[in-house]
This record gives sequence, C-alpha cells and structure tokens, in this order.
Amino acid sequence: MASAYSRSMQAMIDALARLPGVGPKSAQRIAFHLLKSEREDVLKLTKAIEEARGSVRFCERCFNFSETALCHICSDERRDASTICVVEESRDVVALEKTGQFRGRYHVLLGAINPLEGTGPEHLKVREMLLRIEPEQVKEIILCLNPNTEGDVTAMYLARLLKPLGVRVTQLAMGLPVGGDLEYADEVTLGRALVGRREVGD
Amino acid sequence: MASAYSRSMQAMIDALARLPGVGPKSAQRIAFHLLKSEREDVLKLTKAIEEARGSVRFCERCFNFSETALCHICSDERRDASTICVVEESRDVVALEKTGQFRGRYHVLLGAINPLEGTGPEHLKVREMLLRIEPEQVKEIILCLNPNTEGDVTAMYLARLLKPLGVRVTQLAMGLPVGGDLEYADEVTLGRALVGRREVGD
Repeated sequence: MASAYSRSMQAMIDALARLPGVGPKSAQRIAFHLLKSEREDVLKLTKAIEEARGSVRFCERCFNFSETALCHICSDERRDASTICVVEESRDVVALEKTGQFRGRYHVLLGAINPLEGTGPEHLKVREMLLRIEPEQVKEIILCLNPNTEGDVTAMYLARLLKPLGVRVTQLAMGLPVGGDLEYADEVTLGRALVGRREVGD
Repeated sequence: MASAYSRSMQAMIDALARLPGVGPKSAQRIAFHLLKSEREDVLKLTKAIEEARGSVRFCERCFNFSETALCHICSDERRDASTICVVEESRDVVALEKTGQFRGRYHVLLGAINPLEGTGPEHLKVREMLLRIEPEQVKEIILCLNPNTEGDVTAMYLARLLKPLGVRVTQLAMGLPVGGDLEYADEVTLGRALVGRREVGD
C-alpha cells in the first residue's frame, strides 16, 4: 500500500532510494532515522551535502574532485609529473593514495568504455589525457582500471593509443589478494596469478 | 590518509556515515555519486529531507508519524477502535499495514525496554497507551513487538500491566517463516513453532 506514507515522507524515501547502494528498505530506514533525529542534525547533513556539491568541481588537469582549479595532488610540487596513473573515478585516486606507494600524478577518465551503455572514448577524458603527455613530459602511464570487461576494454584501447607515442604503458599486477586463501580464489584470478608469477625473492 | 579529501567533502562523508546502515565505504560511494549528480537533483534530495523533517510530527493519539494532529489511521472512521496493535516504531506500522490483515488502530511505543541502554517504561509511550483504553473502549491489545530480548521484556511488562484492566492481551504467532526451509530454521524459531503448533485445517 503506497498510502502507508504521507506525501512528503514518500518524496524523501524516493529521493533516498535513488542513492547508490540504498534500496527501498534502507531508504525507509534512513527516512525514519531522519524523522526521529534532532532537526539541527538533519540540517547539518543537508547543509554538508549542499556545501560539498557547491564547492567541489573537477581538477582542470586531471579531473579528480577538487575545491580549487588544480587538485591538491596536481598542485603538489613534490609529485613526479612524469608518471600518470589513469583511473576511472575519483574514488580510485583515494584508494591508490591510501597505499602510499605512488608519488606521481593521476588522470581520471570519469568512466570506462561501455558499448552496452553507449559510453565511448569520446565520452571520457581520453583526449585530455593525450594532451598532457607533451607538456608534462610523461614517461610512464599506469593503467589502473577496474579488473572487469569495461576496464579491460578501456585499457586495451588506451594502450593502443599510447604506445605509438613512445610512452611506457603498464598496468596493475593481477593475482591473489593479500590475505586471501588460494582455495577460495576464483579460477580467473588464479589463472592470472599463475601467468603473472614471479621469481621468489623479487 | 585523511588528507585524501577536501574539508567540505570530508564533512559530507562524515555526515552520511552517521546514517543507519551506511558505513564509511557506502558514505564515500554516495558522496561521489552526489558530486557527479546534477546540482538540481542534489537539491531535490536535500529539500525532500528538510521538507519531510519539517512537516512530519507524531500523531497525538498513537505516536505514529503524521503530517496532521491525528495520523491517517487514527482519523479513519472505518478503523476498529476496540483493537490496538502496540508496536515499537512507526516502521512496524508500515509493515503491518502492508499485510492488509489488521483493521484496528496502532500505538507506537517509540522504542522498547532496554536496561542496558537505560531505556525504561517511563521513556516509552506506555502511560499514553493506558490512557487510551477507557475513552476508546479498547477490548484487545495485540503486542507486536520485535522477537528479541528487548521486545520480549517489553511484552511481558505490558502484559502484566494490561491484564488487570480486563483487556484481552495477545501477541503475534511465532513459527516458521512462510517459504522458509525447516532445515535452515534456527532452533529457537523451530522450538516456538513446535510449542505453537495448530490442528491441521485450522
């Protein structure tokens, strides 16, 4: 029965249910929580969202989220400009930054090639990536795309595009997750781990 | 690295992560989604939340969420005033309404007795429930509390309080979930299903 909720309640639930990872049940749960919360806590949430949406834009160089023209990574003089990590989304930048293993710059494609959804290279920041190679004297481009069909297709496309330009093109190693159990690894991962095997002691 | 996010971005993620069922990972995912969404879609969400929070209050009689002094159930003349379903939260009203099996009214306690969290009967709408029995000529009170420790304790407390008043006190049947598999039922549920067994054909 749709009539179980009042109009404004239903509007809130509908809006919440459109968020990623929030189904109708969680939307309802969050809605009830918000109705029971202090009015000022609710305003704190909505203000935080509106403020972030208002102040955050894309970095002019790498298309990472940023509150300034250049993001904090692109404007950091200590980062190595000659290596660029190409990722699909800003959240991948966050994940890679957390490893503490990368001191170069990023380039966010804002998606991956997906013919089924009609996303071609022209919808991604591919041209903008190519235009960075010369002025930033890029020597290596690390393709850090998601290990799925869209990511693989995008990686192949970019590699074909980049290799003639004399740039070293690499990609993330595939293999067993650290702490994982061999027995529970899927056969594709295990296969890639086998193909990518390394000498002990490397 | 906390420095992975700008201040306003971090504030939004923190506010989202305080919602029920939203962990740090989903908060981050929702935040990125909101930043990539059209500005007006984001405003639609925050406005819907603020509007609902502003207009929704508690029903004066049953403490269900309502936009009017009396909720749509309490103000529905066709509902049977003599039977009251006592529930912990408004969301339980929604769940029970969806069954289409109940034509009486509700009473929302706004919680359950939980000594560990310091929630006693005085923090719940127990007194308000008792005050309804006489004027509404209540004949039966169905205790629809959650099948857990807090719900059981609350049910026992309310039953002891209500029985001397000459009201019929019932509670929801316990047993196997419809569509469930006997083999996978936990032993407590199975035990309750055994104790509550009924003649075939009832």
